[in-house]
Amino acid sequence: MAFNKDTVRTVIFEADTPAGKAFDVWLIVFILISVGAVMLDSVEAIRTEYGAYLYAIEWFFTIVFTIEYGLRLWCIQNTWLYARSFYGIIDLLCILPTYLSLWVAGSQYLLVIRVLRVLRVFRVLRMVRYVGEAELITQALVASRRKITVFVSSVLALVVVFGSLMYLIEGGSNDNFASIPASVYWAVTTMTTVGYGDITPATPLGRSLATIIMIMGYGIIAVPTGIVTLELNEANRRRANTRTCPDCSAEGHSREATYCWRCGHHLFRDAGKPPESELGHL
Amino acid sequence: MAFNKDTVRTVIFEADTPAGKAFDVWLIVFILISVGAVMLDSVEAIRTEYGAYLYAIEWFFTIVFTIEYGLRLWCIQNTWLYARSFYGIIDLLCILPTYLSLWVAGSQYLLVIRVLRVLRVFRVLRMVRYVGEAELITQALVASRRKITVFVSSVLALVVVFGSLMYLIEGGSNDNFASIPASVYWAVTTMTTVGYGDITPATPLGRSLATIIMIMGYGIIAVPTGIVTLELNEANRRRANTRTCPDCSAEGHSREATYCWRCGHHLFRDAGKPPESELGHL
Amino acid sequence: MAFNKDTVRTVIFEADTPAGKAFDVWLIVFILISVGAVMLDSVEAIRTEYGAYLYAIEWFFTIVFTIEYGLRLWCIQNTWLYARSFYGIIDLLCILPTYLSLWVAGSQYLLVIRVLRVLRVFRVLRMVRYVGEAELITQALVASRRKITVFVSSVLALVVVFGSLMYLIEGGSNDNFASIPASVYWAVTTMTTVGYGDITPATPLGRSLATIIMIMGYGIIAVPTGIVTLELNEANRRRANTRTCPDCSAEGHSREATYCWRCGHHLFRDAGKPPESELGHL
Amino acid sequence: MAFNKDTVRTVIFEADTPAGKAFDVWLIVFILISVGAVMLDSVEAIRTEYGAYLYAIEWFFTIVFTIEYGLRLWCIQNTWLYARSFYGIIDLLCILPTYLSLWVAGSQYLLVIRVLRVLRVFRVLRMVRYVGEAELITQALVASRRKITVFVSSVLALVVVFGSLMYLIEGGSNDNFASIPASVYWAVTTMTTVGYGDITPATPLGRSLATIIMIMGYGIIAVPTGIVTLELNEANRRRANTRTCPDCSAEGHSREATYCWRCGHHLFRDAGKPPESELGHL
Repeated sequence: MAFNKDTVRTVIFEADTPAGKAFDVWLIVFILISVGAVMLDSVEAIRTEYGAYLYAIEWFFTIVFTIEYGLRLWCIQNTWLYARSFYGIIDLLCILPTYLSLWVAGSQYLLVIRVLRVLRVFRVLRMVRYVGEAELITQALVASRRKITVFVSSVLALVVVFGSLMYLIEGGSNDNFASIPASVYWAVTTMTTVGYGDITPATPLGRSLATIIMIMGYGIIAVPTGIVTLELNEANRRRANTRTCPDCSAEGHSREATYCWRCGHHLFRDAGKPPESELGHL
Repeated sequence: MAFNKDTVRTVIFEADTPAGKAFDVWLIVFILISVGAVMLDSVEAIRTEYGAYLYAIEWFFTIVFTIEYGLRLWCIQNTWLYARSFYGIIDLLCILPTYLSLWVAGSQYLLVIRVLRVLRVFRVLRMVRYVGEAELITQALVASRRKITVFVSSVLALVVVFGSLMYLIEGGSNDNFASIPASVYWAVTTMTTVGYGDITPATPLGRSLATIIMIMGYGIIAVPTGIVTLELNEANRRRANTRTCPDCSAEGHSREATYCWRCGHHLFRDAGKPPESELGHL
Repeated sequence: MAFNKDTVRTVIFEADTPAGKAFDVWLIVFILISVGAVMLDSVEAIRTEYGAYLYAIEWFFTIVFTIEYGLRLWCIQNTWLYARSFYGIIDLLCILPTYLSLWVAGSQYLLVIRVLRVLRVFRVLRMVRYVGEAELITQALVASRRKITVFVSSVLALVVVFGSLMYLIEGGSNDNFASIPASVYWAVTTMTTVGYGDITPATPLGRSLATIIMIMGYGIIAVPTGIVTLELNEANRRRANTRTCPDCSAEGHSREATYCWRCGHHLFRDAGKPPESELGHL
Repeated sequence: MAFNKDTVRTVIFEADTPAGKAFDVWLIVFILISVGAVMLDSVEAIRTEYGAYLYAIEWFFTIVFTIEYGLRLWCIQNTWLYARSFYGIIDLLCILPTYLSLWVAGSQYLLVIRVLRVLRVFRVLRMVRYVGEAELITQALVASRRKITVFVSSVLALVVVFGSLMYLIEGGSNDNFASIPASVYWAVTTMTTVGYGDITPATPLGRSLATIIMIMGYGIIAVPTGIVTLELNEANRRRANTRTCPDCSAEGHSREATYCWRCGHHLFRDAGKPPESELGHL
């Protein structure tokens, strides 16, 4: 296999060939290890003892990913299109922080460096790219984006109102409800059923209002579920089999169907089974 | 563009013209800023330092919204109908508190004034008005209101029973379960899966009962979700085919319908299949 | 209206006549007041001050409900069938505790009396009886009882296994995981997403296992929701319109349909609208 | 009834005969008692007092289950196939720990013995085997395994990113967010709506980010629910019409089907509509 743009692109951007598959698997392993190293580095006790090793690992993976990024830029036909794409930017953001930590030296910037360092965990986001099933879920979420926006706006309005009411009720006697923002934060933890318990009502009136909010949250949590279920169902049906019977125009054939369920007519002109790719897609 | 009732009404009540859209966008921005100011004003540290500025902002927006409310009353055809409508009342409630804080003076009423002040966050509720998608969700929630009422009644009955049982079990040894209302509050936080943790059972028997309630809550939380999913589905299907019968103007035909369900008239003039674009709409 | 078995039964057991409706509304009001009195009586501060009034209220309602129970027994045709029925037993349990508190006297039994007293909140359960919509939900829950049983059994097995694992991991270092029952209780609070926070893992390994359980709980909470949604859908469809077209045998007509969507044939022999009772049922 | 391989196998492996059913019921009772004994044994106070009895119970059930395991190995036709199967391994794991606790003696290994001891709760997992309804749920979960994997991967990526961001925001001032792993653990408790409250944000910025994560978690929890509902629906529909094609034995026909989707053969010999009982089955 010659080392040219085409073969490299096949290996890096496609996962169909054995080499391409191996590359992707190794990339995931490398990403997971490097993210693990960053996470361990944040634990004080581990950094004190193994800091040097983790520093080496960090640089090793940064160089590996830099080479990989360079190859991607080199082998792709439209370099600029890739560089501006979502994953192109993520790929760049995954190597920059380590280099930036060199220029931006000095004890006073240490904390800032750590911020950049952590951003590298975005690498892990690339995992999603490797799974084809994500499409259906993404499709359903995209289709429901407007409904979700309306829903989230309503919930935000509700938590502001309820948070403010709670501030009025509990604010005087309860230090935890010291301001409206804190009360709104409480309303969010309550309505989303997270319920940390760091802020809780203590007066009977406050607890009564909390009860109403919780019961409301019960019904409200049902809305996004209904929306996503609806859209997943639609996305699934659209994908299922959009073919109509050439004879009687019946629709709604099951995914593996070859013959019409209503008139028994053959669904495909070239009398054969539907191609495997269609069957195995979902 | 002349300044008369018609043009003003188009700008204020409609969002179709560029001017109307700009008005709505600015209104949202103003509402968000004024709500933000009220929220910041409630934070002690900020009020001490920037209290005067926030007071000025509060009055500025109150006057702006008062003028807007006046224009709404003036330009609408049926003034009284608007004034009594849901949004008419909200619009009024959003400007009253600031004025009331003038009449109701005196240190002893300060707390009451703050109560009124907070009510202005109701303004934020107007955001929902601007999003068209809300209709489907509202429709589904309205359709499921009776089922939800039955469900909430059952849940309330259950939490009263379980709260009382818990009071009997834990009441003697655990100060947190000092009364039935407190125990019922605990049962609500548990059954809605909020789980603050400010009140928790400590005895083995109490924990066993809590386990049963939690497992029950698991199944119970599924009910509103099922109800809303069902009604969202119905609302969605009804909306799907928006074709009205050319004879009797009936709506709500199922997607595959060729004949009107009310009068039996053929739905399509050119007696054939409905156009593809309509079938594939959703 | 003569006072005989028939008229009394119509008033007490039916809600169709104005008198029957009024009776039911008053019964709900009485039940809510008496439950409220029991709940307030459990609050120490209130009992100390208003104990005598609450005692009087308790006896007043007990006598009212006793008379009501007697009338029910008297006017129903099959007395024994009612007495053994679910609501017959609930009706009896709602009046017994007050009488029992007379026989069972003595300071050492006081606590027991309170247990019996609290059982009266079962009265509130009767509220459900008055709402017709409950049928659909009940039907769906009954239809899914076997699936829910399987599901709950699996969840219980999982929490026992995970609780035990957690006991092994955290038991030595963390006092909160002192025994398997306590760890299982923690696993239930975690998997049902209640998350009190009274027991929490502290070791890295324990937190890792907790993460796995929480992510699992995420997927597991989806199962009862799916089951109930499925059964609600089925119950709804079954109720919707089971009529088939007399001409082409098509099914799946919308609830208000009078004509077949496929062939336009009239769905009802006696060419008229479907009876109101059918339309307004859901 | 002669005591030979066939009759023993019918009793142990099947639940159709009265003897087989009785065997299964007794097995469940025995498993529950032995699991209960292990759980009680872990409670310090109970072990001190009743340790000897629990030890006897433990050995009694271990011997019973050993005999049962031996009988299973003896009566089954393909011994090795059973021994390697999922339940064969579980059956073995349920008796090994007690025997291992004999070899592995010594105070320093006591803790390890307890580990093995606890593993026996896996026995309880066998309960699932006895419920036939489990199939539908299992089928739906298996069908959704790839979608769930994608979903869980995305959630894990999100919690790593959000946990790291939170570490940067709160890490300096809040001891609870001392490392990225701890922050990720917090992000998991928040996004799954468990919300222990052992780690909570204290800064305004941290609380703002927490609010975003909670609102996101709200929408995200809808995804697995939608997936499972979808697949449960599919599994249910597939099961609905269990008719197999008389020509090619294909299954999974849609409910209204008249012709086989695979070979086009007519599904009903007496060329007519499918019997009502089948249509209305589910």
